[in-house]
Amino acid sequence: MASNSSGSSSSHRIAQHRLSIISGHLQRPVDGNTAIVSAECKSQRDKPDVSSEEKTVPRRRQEIMKWNGWGYSDSKFLFNKKGQAEFTGKRYRLSGMIIPGLKDWMEGTFGASMQHKTSAVPILNSGAVQTPTLNEAFVEELKSTGIPFSHDAEDRVFRAHGHCLHEIFALREGKVGRVPDMVVWPRGTSVSSALECPPEETRSIVSLDTSQMNRILWIDEKNLTAHVEAGIVGQDLERLLNENGYCTGHEPDSMEFSSLGGWVATRASGMKKNIYGNIEDLVVHVKMVTPRGVIEKSCQGPRMSTGPDIHHFIMGSEGTLGVVTEVTMKIRPMPEYQKYGSVVFPNFEQGVACLREVAKQRCAPASIRLMDNEQFKFGHALKPQVSSLFTSFLDGLKKFYITKFKGFDPNRLCVATLLFEGDREKVLQHEKQVYDIAAKFGGLAAGEDNGQRGYMLTFVIAYLRDLGMDYYVIGESFETSVPWDRVLDICRNVKARIVRECKDKGVQFPPLSTCRVTQTYDAGACVYFYFAFNYRGLSDPVHVYEQVEHAAREEILANGGSLSHHHGVGKLRKEWMRETISNVGLGMLKSVKDYVDPNNIFGNRNLL
Amino acid sequence: MASNSSGSSSSHRIAQHRLSIISGHLQRPVDGNTAIVSAECKSQRDKPDVSSEEKTVPRRRQEIMKWNGWGYSDSKFLFNKKGQAEFTGKRYRLSGMIIPGLKDWMEGTFGASMQHKTSAVPILNSGAVQTPTLNEAFVEELKSTGIPFSHDAEDRVFRAHGHCLHEIFALREGKVGRVPDMVVWPRGTSVSSALECPPEETRSIVSLDTSQMNRILWIDEKNLTAHVEAGIVGQDLERLLNENGYCTGHEPDSMEFSSLGGWVATRASGMKKNIYGNIEDLVVHVKMVTPRGVIEKSCQGPRMSTGPDIHHFIMGSEGTLGVVTEVTMKIRPMPEYQKYGSVVFPNFEQGVACLREVAKQRCAPASIRLMDNEQFKFGHALKPQVSSLFTSFLDGLKKFYITKFKGFDPNRLCVATLLFEGDREKVLQHEKQVYDIAAKFGGLAAGEDNGQRGYMLTFVIAYLRDLGMDYYVIGESFETSVPWDRVLDICRNVKARIVRECKDKGVQFPPLSTCRVTQTYDAGACVYFYFAFNYRGLSDPVHVYEQVEHAAREEILANGGSLSHHHGVGKLRKEWMRETISNVGLGMLKSVKDYVDPNNIFGNRNLL
Repeated sequence: MASNSSGSSSSHRIAQHRLSIISGHLQRPVDGNTAIVSAECKSQRDKPDVSSEEKTVPRRRQEIMKWNGWGYSDSKFLFNKKGQAEFTGKRYRLSGMIIPGLKDWMEGTFGASMQHKTSAVPILNSGAVQTPTLNEAFVEELKSTGIPFSHDAEDRVFRAHGHCLHEIFALREGKVGRVPDMVVWPRGTSVSSALECPPEETRSIVSLDTSQMNRILWIDEKNLTAHVEAGIVGQDLERLLNENGYCTGHEPDSMEFSSLGGWVATRASGMKKNIYGNIEDLVVHVKMVTPRGVIEKSCQGPRMSTGPDIHHFIMGSEGTLGVVTEVTMKIRPMPEYQKYGSVVFPNFEQGVACLREVAKQRCAPASIRLMDNEQFKFGHALKPQVSSLFTSFLDGLKKFYITKFKGFDPNRLCVATLLFEGDREKVLQHEKQVYDIAAKFGGLAAGEDNGQRGYMLTFVIAYLRDLGMDYYVIGESFETSVPWDRVLDICRNVKARIVRECKDKGVQFPPLSTCRVTQTYDAGACVYFYFAFNYRGLSDPVHVYEQVEHAAREEILANGGSLSHHHGVGKLRKEWMRETISNVGLGMLKSVKDYVDPNNIFGNRNLL
Repeated sequence: MASNSSGSSSSHRIAQHRLSIISGHLQRPVDGNTAIVSAECKSQRDKPDVSSEEKTVPRRRQEIMKWNGWGYSDSKFLFNKKGQAEFTGKRYRLSGMIIPGLKDWMEGTFGASMQHKTSAVPILNSGAVQTPTLNEAFVEELKSTGIPFSHDAEDRVFRAHGHCLHEIFALREGKVGRVPDMVVWPRGTSVSSALECPPEETRSIVSLDTSQMNRILWIDEKNLTAHVEAGIVGQDLERLLNENGYCTGHEPDSMEFSSLGGWVATRASGMKKNIYGNIEDLVVHVKMVTPRGVIEKSCQGPRMSTGPDIHHFIMGSEGTLGVVTEVTMKIRPMPEYQKYGSVVFPNFEQGVACLREVAKQRCAPASIRLMDNEQFKFGHALKPQVSSLFTSFLDGLKKFYITKFKGFDPNRLCVATLLFEGDREKVLQHEKQVYDIAAKFGGLAAGEDNGQRGYMLTFVIAYLRDLGMDYYVIGESFETSVPWDRVLDICRNVKARIVRECKDKGVQFPPLSTCRVTQTYDAGACVYFYFAFNYRGLSDPVHVYEQVEHAAREEILANGGSLSHHHGVGKLRKEWMRETISNVGLGMLKSVKDYVDPNNIFGNRNLL
């Protein structure tokens, strides 16, 4: 309703033409290094205010997070003096554990060798970071508002990248390109090159941090909604809601670091979307500040027909239109009961057929994921030394082999992991229904522990790439969505294409090329590919990597897959936008951009 | 992908600036009078092609449908020579039946009298219809393409209106305003004045009929989707799918006459959305022809993050951007079992609390609707003379009173109707769950027959307004969506406002002012209001009607309700669009319109 923007956005307008803002609202992970100061949680039903002083991310993020790798500085894979892999720190269940199988797996899968090690530049050389191009008028105005900002090189470099392979690879070599000229506490990064600064940008680039906008403004227990400032990170949002007995249930794999505004801006998907929905199902109201003013609906009706849904102009806009500042989300009472599970299938084809049938019968658990044989083996490699918490997957598997999986070929079998949520009685009924369907496709129940371990590894696996890079192994994941009848073809063809391209491009070791089905829908599924190779002997490994990834995307599109299921487009995939949404579709997006932001203040050049 | 439009759309472009097209894709009911010629149904899995020659609507629609009232000409309410109400024809279950209570109800509720009757003009006076403004170049080109068209007055008048009260009232008096100058087989009308021709339009107005685009092009049994030409009407789509064992499950109350393209263009909602979803949940792919070219996605992935979802630029566009030509819809196997039900609550408050709890537990049946006390009584009035099919609701009720509902005040109680669908065992479980919840709110099961009768009346009730108008009673329905915590307030306040406004505006009889909750969501509900009054003694009843409706909408908005849940905006509600979606939101819609249709070829002037 309001046509005037206020606060920080008026500052932006004054500096039109001379500023470009890279909005921090991108999916994975958060780049803000500002404190989650105080996330208030206030109920409309006269509950006392809940204040939490716990901070997930400190003001100077580099104090606890890696500047050139994934996640927390204290958490990483390494090979210890005995040559055993271990995962450091205390944050995760795998932390402090020895992973005996990982070395063999890396050597066997990639031809990696402990003798061939690369080193990342240990600290950022500030001298390599260009002097900031400052817009003095903007800086002066900013000072008068009291909004914190920084020109510090570390702060700026932290916000100049996402976690695409080429970005991290360059950082490890100490290479820094165009970076923001100043930070006004933005948040976000991505797996789509969305935060990459356009090198041709001559204006002062401001990285806008929303990390101080991290409060839950109210919880409405009658309507089961929560109104939240959009800078809050996923883990804080869930923790604060949990303290009040609620959850959003939105759990993207990046939820440790990604923000609510980022989910909206990139159309995020959560692991448990079968119960809670994806971000477009969870959002009841969105407020975005644009150079043209504030955009929002006037009411919180649950569903409307008032022209095209403006929420869908905002969702997916990837920071090109403005900053999402507040969101009303659906919440649910925390589930009474959770139960993990797993099923082993004789082969991937049977596994996919089972997932399709589960989707058809509309009885998918909160999460159901199907790993192919390569990932199944990878799962072995990551099993820690036996502990009470982690039952050895291999030991369990051996036992199962003897008793149950006699007819299964260990080089073909695959595994689905399951997570059920709800009230206890229904979960047990539901579980029976799913295992009954699985049995029809030759699937055998393989225990709760294997399922639980699969989900717990979700957050830890992201750390593995940094270890790989220490030993000449580079890799990446990417995803698509595809109709059911093309799932098998796309999995087979894309994996084969990767292998073929690696060979053609001179990769001297066979690559890892593997996939999983991570989400199911009525009419199709989301497929995630993982691909990595040993680059010893290659003069420009990142270029080779990019060529292979490009070919894999072409193969995905040729097989009826979408450009992205939930990662978004950014700059990495924008060359395919026109064919993806048609000339007219792209023209529509451009017309909205031109109207909302004629001077391209939100100049990250994503999408268009 | 294609930037060139072809076929009929290139004709439009040639005639730019001199033509305005009123697209027929609007929700309720169909205005096309062209034959549903042959709806082919083709399976991708080598089923033989299914052709059906059954026609729902003949080429000259006026041959079987009313030109100045609702629905089929052979179906209407009237008072017979004995003074008894009956419903004519053979199409509906109520057809051929006597409705003994209707006369008393009309007299009692409205002060209507058999002595005070109005008459509609029996036939259209073609002389009152303006001479068509023809664009000769366009006509010549049209001739060369062989596309059928008509300048016939009847054909044109049929497509010049929807079913808003003021539109039908004017037709009954033989008044015709600006009408299309020619018909090129369009389809559609609305309850939002969406088809009203802008009187200031000086260009030749073409009404575009999609009724010949009515084929199911394929059924994909692996992905459970059907690809359908967008002109098909709901009843034909469901019938043809049913013949193949499938359904979409999309059942708007208008499904006898509304088209698939109309559902997309207006963001339709179906009665059974709790299982099947609303139109935005059902659509997998949309193709729209615009003056700028064809817009469509390049693949049928079930969910994507490729920028803002262009389907949501199309859905809700109400014919302002182009013509929806093809849609891929989700389909489901036909349900094994259906069961109706009903629950009587001591009062409306308890009923709403029950619906909210059902929504919270996410166990809503395919349909759940809650009628207030006035509608409950209205339900009595419509009970036909006892037959095997229709158990008398009143008789049943009397019996219940004696045995079960002793403590219920007949002037406060209300009733919910239920429809369960699925496999038999689950339906029975589900039913028990819902009745158990109802019991906690004082609800008592009131039988399957009462539930079934409620749903069957859905299609017949639309005919009742024409009877009312014969006896000086005018009325209309309108709807909103609203958060749960405001449902009771909005119902009470809007009903009271209507009564107050009628009195203030000089209505000499107490109006009927009633509501029902027709859809439930996680965070709110859809509320439908019905309002009618006896206008004897008023000099300009339509103006009074419009003032009251306007005030009711203001009351809805003031109570946190949305501008529309599913009827759309059209011209009737566009004055509130700016406040509904904010200045920037409206600007975005305009920017898209300006880009896609710079010459305003799709000139119906809805929404903006």
